[in-house]
Amino acid sequence: MKRYELLAEEIATSIRSGMLDVGDRLPSVRQISTSRGVSVSTVFEAYYLLEARGLIRARERSGYYVTAGNTRLPPEPVIHSNCSTGAHPVRVNDLVFSILESARSRDVVPLASAFPSPLLFPLPRLARSLARGAETMDPWSTVDAITPGSATLRRQIATRYLADGALVQPDDVVITNGALEALNLCLQAVTQPGDAVIVESPTFYGALQALENLGLRAIEVPSCPRDGICLDRLAQALAADKPAACWLMTNFQNPLGSLMPDANKRALVDLLAAHGVPLIEDDVYGELYYGPRRPLPAKAFDQEGLVLHCSSFSKCLAPGYRLGWALPGRFREQVARLKLTRTLAVAAPVQEGLSDYLARGGYDRHLRQLRHTLALQQTAMSAAVLRHFPAGTRASRPEGGYFLWVEFPAGVDTLSLQREACLRNIGVAPGPMFSARGEFRNCIRLNFGHHWDAKIEGAIATLGALAAAQLDSPRPAPAIEEPGLSALGA
Amino acid sequence: MKRYELLAEEIATSIRSGMLDVGDRLPSVRQISTSRGVSVSTVFEAYYLLEARGLIRARERSGYYVTAGNTRLPPEPVIHSNCSTGAHPVRVNDLVFSILESARSRDVVPLASAFPSPLLFPLPRLARSLARGAETMDPWSTVDAITPGSATLRRQIATRYLADGALVQPDDVVITNGALEALNLCLQAVTQPGDAVIVESPTFYGALQALENLGLRAIEVPSCPRDGICLDRLAQALAADKPAACWLMTNFQNPLGSLMPDANKRALVDLLAAHGVPLIEDDVYGELYYGPRRPLPAKAFDQEGLVLHCSSFSKCLAPGYRLGWALPGRFREQVARLKLTRTLAVAAPVQEGLSDYLARGGYDRHLRQLRHTLALQQTAMSAAVLRHFPAGTRASRPEGGYFLWVEFPAGVDTLSLQREACLRNIGVAPGPMFSARGEFRNCIRLNFGHHWDAKIEGAIATLGALAAAQLDSPRPAPAIEEPGLSALGA
Repeated sequence: MKRYELLAEEIATSIRSGMLDVGDRLPSVRQISTSRGVSVSTVFEAYYLLEARGLIRARERSGYYVTAGNTRLPPEPVIHSNCSTGAHPVRVNDLVFSILESARSRDVVPLASAFPSPLLFPLPRLARSLARGAETMDPWSTVDAITPGSATLRRQIATRYLADGALVQPDDVVITNGALEALNLCLQAVTQPGDAVIVESPTFYGALQALENLGLRAIEVPSCPRDGICLDRLAQALAADKPAACWLMTNFQNPLGSLMPDANKRALVDLLAAHGVPLIEDDVYGELYYGPRRPLPAKAFDQEGLVLHCSSFSKCLAPGYRLGWALPGRFREQVARLKLTRTLAVAAPVQEGLSDYLARGGYDRHLRQLRHTLALQQTAMSAAVLRHFPAGTRASRPEGGYFLWVEFPAGVDTLSLQREACLRNIGVAPGPMFSARGEFRNCIRLNFGHHWDAKIEGAIATLGALAAAQLDSPRPAPAIEEPGLSALGA
Repeated sequence: MKRYELLAEEIATSIRSGMLDVGDRLPSVRQISTSRGVSVSTVFEAYYLLEARGLIRARERSGYYVTAGNTRLPPEPVIHSNCSTGAHPVRVNDLVFSILESARSRDVVPLASAFPSPLLFPLPRLARSLARGAETMDPWSTVDAITPGSATLRRQIATRYLADGALVQPDDVVITNGALEALNLCLQAVTQPGDAVIVESPTFYGALQALENLGLRAIEVPSCPRDGICLDRLAQALAADKPAACWLMTNFQNPLGSLMPDANKRALVDLLAAHGVPLIEDDVYGELYYGPRRPLPAKAFDQEGLVLHCSSFSKCLAPGYRLGWALPGRFREQVARLKLTRTLAVAAPVQEGLSDYLARGGYDRHLRQLRHTLALQQTAMSAAVLRHFPAGTRASRPEGGYFLWVEFPAGVDTLSLQREACLRNIGVAPGPMFSARGEFRNCIRLNFGHHWDAKIEGAIATLGALAAAQLDSPRPAPAIEEPGLSALGA
């Protein structure tokens, strides 16, 4: 842990313990610097971090004050455990595509977006690295750096895992067209059509689409907004059904934002290993933590090679470059072969370009800035939800990523909310997108990965008004007219 | 047709008709220029073209002479029609991967390679275009230029089809990670696991691998080295079986090099339409013609939207950039959705880079040079086969692409030839790679896409000696020890 992170942790502990109370003024930067023998910039960094986490706030010409942000946040959602057991066919494509299509235009406020703002990334520096990569590329690398991919880049990726505490070798890495391809290949490598696969409830719709495309059935296991998948329910599902695999997100899950504690990750890996069930781990948000250090992936606890870990640079460095990877453990050969037969390779100059970027340093500096920005935007989004959404609305408190999971009071139907918002050029990702059976109809996922401005604040206010109107004049269950909804069994 | 192409056609006709005989000296460049009223460079270009086609040859300080190359070529292979009817499961992956892996090192003479030499492509110019594309890229294009892909690039691709005589609109185009992804997506869009799909015999092993991965069965219909798939046998298969799709290459088929005449393409499209069977058309070699004009794709005859046409820049412009596309006809929506759920998009800077290259011109000039080079290398390869391979060896005479299909006399076993060649650092693609049931054991595919030199000539001589040795001391059928061979039913 860096010096400023230690200092921030210490102050955070004082706030949580009540030693520092809401409204208290913090010592000045110079005072702390002198008393602790640390540099002024270290204190500033610690204060920025605490501000990002919503614990303190600067007042102009007056210093920093404790806001103890937590007391000003909406209450957290409760765990949903209404998932029935057993495996079910998946048919979400129609609903998911119709919603994504409706939110794709630039004129739409991007609350439904799956991406953070592309302006948060070092695109000019990446472009220069790409130019150098393409210019200096060995022509023969177009032939022999096909899957598993550039040896240099695989070494760079493995080194980052090593530094974070997961033992990964360059030969474990298979470079892919983004994490999405990695996930699809891993799923195909360990399943046959008709198999059942455990997913979280709610889960990333991309997982459901992957299951649907491969003719797989879903077993939904409830996940909690704080700690992720419920291990007791998972154990039950493993005993009752015969899943071929389990697909989940351990760090800052999409859509919940949940973070599995290390102990849970270890227990998860052991539990699955006891049943011989492979784990497909989607870790694309792992680098976007607001806390002091990168949370470990479940892969770090994998003794059996049963964890197929997938990630990418798309959400943390290079959107649009489509560079991801899989660490498929004992399934490496199958995944590499599937990759070769489906898309052969990732563009050689893109691999060279990312490799050049990583070699020149600056990635970690960019990440610190990005995490800081996202944490600030989360504070703004949470506050806006509290301000504008109907009383009784709950929201998750993710410690990383850029999604807020919002649970409206029962009676709000987010599928019709989405349609009404769409007419006002506001994108919304309604809960049923994240469920194989159309659950979470009073929930939405909000993207706070975009620069906070009046337009976004206004959109939140509009959503709040629309939800309130639904509560004021509750309607009968709507006729089944939403695209794909009938397929959801709603 | 350009002026020099017209002139070359005229002279070629004179040679074929016997008006000009082997050994005859052609009129001097200046004479023709004067008598025909065309520029000296036009005559030179015509003579180069004829030289590339093996019809004439320059002698130093003496002018051009008719060599009527055809009489010096190996005899053509006969049509294979020993395919049994009915659909069969496909298990070629083990064999194909073991052979491809063994030939992947740079030290191996690349006769088994699927790629032409990367040195034949304008990589420095492409790198500059990529640099400009990345530098000027609108950051938001990383979000909204996902599948179907960049509107500019789709317009540029559609325009080339229009110029070549196929009516294609930008909205018909779905940008993909190379043609391989396009083909896999199209196949998945029109089939369900267990379905039967018509392929050529022999066929591109990538088609067989795609079938295997999706759990599809293959119906093999014989294809002829000159004209492509046998339409009579295709009609029988359509009537007897219930195929879900037909996958083939209309132009310069891999591995045969066959070119379907326009009339056959039209008949093919009509026949399939009569049965309501979609055609997946792999046209990655269409631009590599040696003749006067680009052969039409079957897509040009498609009235029903039943042709799913796939191509890319990988073989004709930008190896390693992994930029391809599908024109999926009436299946556009399904293909675009599958693409979105599997790999989301093609790297935005790569799309921008290719678009920049195409906008600046020079692609057609590059293609003319490339075709000329490949045609010359084919002449060299055919001559070497005639010189070094055992008497009775036959070879195809492709009018485009960079593959020669060679049929040794019965008694040569190319699977053991491949293993023996491998020990000598020579890559060989044996016939059984191209068949769902391990046929064509006395055939190989030779790649002539690399600069002709003593090393390649020496490799051909070695292969010839190895084949001759097999014929001299015929061995009993080898024990089944080749990887995957048992699966081939051999």
